[in-house]
Amino acid sequence: MKYRLKIHVSLKLGHSDPEGETAARLLKELGYKVESVSVGKVYTVFLEAASRREAEQKAEEMCRRLLANPTKDDYMIAVEEMK
Amino acid sequence: MKYRLKIHVSLKLGHSDPEGETAARLLKELGYKVESVSVGKVYTVFLEAASRREAEQKAEEMCRRLLANPTKDDYMIAVEEMK
Repeated sequence: MKYRLKIHVSLKLGHSDPEGETAARLLKELGYKVESVSVGKVYTVFLEAASRREAEQKAEEMCRRLLANPTKDDYMIAVEEMK
Repeated sequence: MKYRLKIHVSLKLGHSDPEGETAARLLKELGYKVESVSVGKVYTVFLEAASRREAEQKAEEMCRRLLANPTKDDYMIAVEEMK
């Protein structure tokens, strides 16, 4: 079965986010009433797996092993079966 | 009123995504049955606006003026009112 994983990686609270701070500053300079900006990444992964449960487990593993840094990142996983 | 904008910026179909290709290659080397990976960004913006409609309009503008590159990026906007 084929699955689409959406993996959203964002910085843990309290970690500095220079890219977000720069975006916030530029948006303020453009005149927007912006309070703060944070920036995260979304990985869309097409994966072959035997079941939804296996796809979820693999996604967890991928985050721990490659996609997220456990020291500074949080992640959220959504799994969708493809037709 | 305060609004939280979630702005998801991703590459248009057909544009090369070296970061996604690298992630796909590494995941395959780690043994995962990955077909492809694409990488996008999510900006979470806290914005002061008079109404939801104004917040949506400002988000559109921000994408066109700063956050997305109209030549190569697609974007999706979600607006949520904060309590």
